[in-house]
Amino acid sequence: MARNLWGWGEVEAADRLEDSRARAEAFFGPLEVEEAAAPRVPAPRVEVPPPLRDFSSAEPRVRAAHALGKSYVDRVRGLRGDFSSAPDLVAFPRDEADLAAVFEAAQAQRLSVIPFGGGSSVVGGVEPRLGPAHRGAVTVDLSRLSRVLEVDEVSRVARIQAGVFGPELERQLAPHGLTLRHFPQSFEYSTLGGWLATRAGGHFATVYTHIDELTESLRLVTPRGVVQTPRVPAHGAGPDANRLALGSEGTLGFITEAWMRVRPRPVFRGAASVHFADFSRAVDATRAIAQSGLFPANCRLLDEKEALLNGVAGDGSSVLVLGFESADASVAPLLDCAVALAEAHGGTCPRGKTLRDDASKARSGDAGDSWRASFLRGPYLQDAMIRLGVVADTFETACTWKAFPTLYAEVMQAVRDALERGCGGGLVTCRFTHVYPDGPAPYFTFLGRGKRGGEAEQWAELKRAASDALAKHGGTITHHHAVGRVHRPWYDRERPALFGEALTAVKRAWDPSGLLNPGVLIDAR
Amino acid sequence: MARNLWGWGEVEAADRLEDSRARAEAFFGPLEVEEAAAPRVPAPRVEVPPPLRDFSSAEPRVRAAHALGKSYVDRVRGLRGDFSSAPDLVAFPRDEADLAAVFEAAQAQRLSVIPFGGGSSVVGGVEPRLGPAHRGAVTVDLSRLSRVLEVDEVSRVARIQAGVFGPELERQLAPHGLTLRHFPQSFEYSTLGGWLATRAGGHFATVYTHIDELTESLRLVTPRGVVQTPRVPAHGAGPDANRLALGSEGTLGFITEAWMRVRPRPVFRGAASVHFADFSRAVDATRAIAQSGLFPANCRLLDEKEALLNGVAGDGSSVLVLGFESADASVAPLLDCAVALAEAHGGTCPRGKTLRDDASKARSGDAGDSWRASFLRGPYLQDAMIRLGVVADTFETACTWKAFPTLYAEVMQAVRDALERGCGGGLVTCRFTHVYPDGPAPYFTFLGRGKRGGEAEQWAELKRAASDALAKHGGTITHHHAVGRVHRPWYDRERPALFGEALTAVKRAWDPSGLLNPGVLIDAR
Repeated sequence: MARNLWGWGEVEAADRLEDSRARAEAFFGPLEVEEAAAPRVPAPRVEVPPPLRDFSSAEPRVRAAHALGKSYVDRVRGLRGDFSSAPDLVAFPRDEADLAAVFEAAQAQRLSVIPFGGGSSVVGGVEPRLGPAHRGAVTVDLSRLSRVLEVDEVSRVARIQAGVFGPELERQLAPHGLTLRHFPQSFEYSTLGGWLATRAGGHFATVYTHIDELTESLRLVTPRGVVQTPRVPAHGAGPDANRLALGSEGTLGFITEAWMRVRPRPVFRGAASVHFADFSRAVDATRAIAQSGLFPANCRLLDEKEALLNGVAGDGSSVLVLGFESADASVAPLLDCAVALAEAHGGTCPRGKTLRDDASKARSGDAGDSWRASFLRGPYLQDAMIRLGVVADTFETACTWKAFPTLYAEVMQAVRDALERGCGGGLVTCRFTHVYPDGPAPYFTFLGRGKRGGEAEQWAELKRAASDALAKHGGTITHHHAVGRVHRPWYDRERPALFGEALTAVKRAWDPSGLLNPGVLIDAR
Repeated sequence: MARNLWGWGEVEAADRLEDSRARAEAFFGPLEVEEAAAPRVPAPRVEVPPPLRDFSSAEPRVRAAHALGKSYVDRVRGLRGDFSSAPDLVAFPRDEADLAAVFEAAQAQRLSVIPFGGGSSVVGGVEPRLGPAHRGAVTVDLSRLSRVLEVDEVSRVARIQAGVFGPELERQLAPHGLTLRHFPQSFEYSTLGGWLATRAGGHFATVYTHIDELTESLRLVTPRGVVQTPRVPAHGAGPDANRLALGSEGTLGFITEAWMRVRPRPVFRGAASVHFADFSRAVDATRAIAQSGLFPANCRLLDEKEALLNGVAGDGSSVLVLGFESADASVAPLLDCAVALAEAHGGTCPRGKTLRDDASKARSGDAGDSWRASFLRGPYLQDAMIRLGVVADTFETACTWKAFPTLYAEVMQAVRDALERGCGGGLVTCRFTHVYPDGPAPYFTFLGRGKRGGEAEQWAELKRAASDALAKHGGTITHHHAVGRVHRPWYDRERPALFGEALTAVKRAWDPSGLLNPGVLIDAR
């Protein structure tokens, strides 16, 4: 199957327009469908350097496929055929020697070097840009580094190359009876290296929320050489080197492989959907569970609009979707305890609890399942909205429990106001994707009617309103979508100024010529 | 009560020699007791700079009390009256303005600046040293910054000044019904700031193993200004600034305060001691529990000698001490499941399980309790051993489960061989202090007969043998004792070279004159 050049996933899988159209038109009235324009790709500014010819391509379609990420604005640009940001060549290194050759050629030819995993960045993290001294850009696609190299079944860790996509990674772990169980929404079209470089958020609502917590050690190839962090489960020997590479977004080097914590597939599962008439009591219940030490695998609170939009509840209830899983023992006592805490805060469990003691059994029709299906459809739905002329996007944050009620009210209001101003109205919803003892990670979705040709400005206004409100009310600019270029204005204010200087100092030490991903995360200055 | 200048804690509490003497003589035969020599403190090399006079002291006893940490060698030196490393003055800043004055005066007078919390470092982390351009040293004792400033009971975090000692911190949290529950062995004589700067290991055997995991945000005062990290429960906005300050060991700045995750006192507790005839099966059982997702608060495996030495089992059994705790619900199901896993690996539970549903009830005589009592006596016991002429110390590591059997065998043998060579025999034992899904944190204790006046050399040989064996067999040089100066030779090899350059680059950015803690952790170069 062919990848969709401008939108999500495979072309064939993307063809789900009519479904989405009916739902969008029910809200917005009749909508027109836009067809994708033929891609316009500029001529390369530089030739492929001879040392890279064996593993590089300058074909227009390949360059177009590496021109953009998958943000709302990226997709609008792609739909209209604008691939003006295409790199001059795309290298597909087979090993670290090829990477070294890329650095050498880039240095000699004055090219910026753009690390590329699955290209699912929604923050402009993979769009090729040039630094002041650059004549062109080489995108480095790591997809040939796609193997599980080694499995330590005793310690339950696996050495995995960074360019592997989610499903292929799981396919290679399966014969060992193991799974990484990191399922971001981009799972099918993003890579381990991308998850590590952007501190991706995954399956687990507690404890192992970011890929960080699943990382034992990693290997970062910088222009100055290799950083191989020690393979130990934990240490107290100075600041943690892993934590400097995690979230470095391709500005300090390429993560080429990592020892990742894996686990057997869960055998015992338990789930329940707890309904609340009052969102603020639902928040209190979720907080009680987050602070209980019960560590649910799933603890996703949907506000009433989110529950409605996802078909989880249609009566104005907020719904807390709880899930526990274990390979060792029934999770019934944990689920009972979590549900009891939720009920003590006014929740009800109209469909009861679901318990399974065998992973191979067919799934029941629990809300958790309809959630999962809708979750992976999300990015395709956004494509459909874009073709229908609807401005549709998500943004996310994390804040303390104390800050949340005001942040929620003010962010919702700010986005509603911005939708009113820019789109003549629209919809905004909220759910929690992850929870911590000290606060939730709220995730917002908004929809508004677009003006053909004016969507980028409409979106920018909505993004600005949302991000300003987050910053004002104690939210981070991102819990797991990374910084890239899109979040820079807010990140630069959130980040302690001296920490910015520290990152720049490290960048100078490891990438002294400023080859890597100019403008993302930090300035090379 | 007066603090013991050379040894642990208070002078009066330290007077427990006879107890220890009987136990040591049972092993080593008759031993002589050495009395502490009068402290010899050199004259200061520099005057107290006038701007610091209001909050500084140059009294010999105050300077002596800041000359050394509490490592084995430090205590031997102190016992013999050698306080030659005393700083020229000790500043007791009342606020950040005083800290700024210290930096200014140190810069003007060419003094090194030594951060000091409780002074319990066992790695030379607080011993005053001079950089090449320094004329003297000012130790900065943060003990006046000792208040819980703010409590957010909703988010369960508290803003706490870094100079507060463990018991006082808990005393100030108690009226809120909250506790930090970070109980390193040094708890009574170490501070929050020291825990943060050294990535201390605490009470929880899983999940919240290091103080890192209890830290929401922190404030680091560097010579260049303040780094205040954002107060959010988590984020994915670039590398985590907290993780650069955590473990920086006073080389980058002073941690002056932090928002720490606190929790209610546990109401429900459960404990069991599982005995194993075979240590390797006990390790397998512990691994199964560490990988189960049950997250016990206590999961401490004692090898047969450790069990014997601590009075937990005298029949050659290895003993796994398990504990669960919760403020919300009975932990019986969790304990049952963990014990079942242990029994499946050949463990037996001769004294059954202990369950408590009320924190105020008197404690039963479970092994967990005798363990706790013995745990806090540990540092006093080491004092007694030193006076009796016994070389006694501990060291610790973390490694993967796969690496552990060989590491254990080889490290035990290397230390036994070194004891044989240097002390004519002795004893070495091992326990796990913390466990992870991918490996344990083994903690070793060794004892050998010392030669008066030659102990430092004997100890250095033992330390070298142990550390070389750790490094050779996949262990980190420290899981929670920090690097300081003592661990530098092994740390420098364990740390990726480019990460060392990165730390040095950050040091240059934040402490451009190289004032802070010269020689600890990194070189300013």
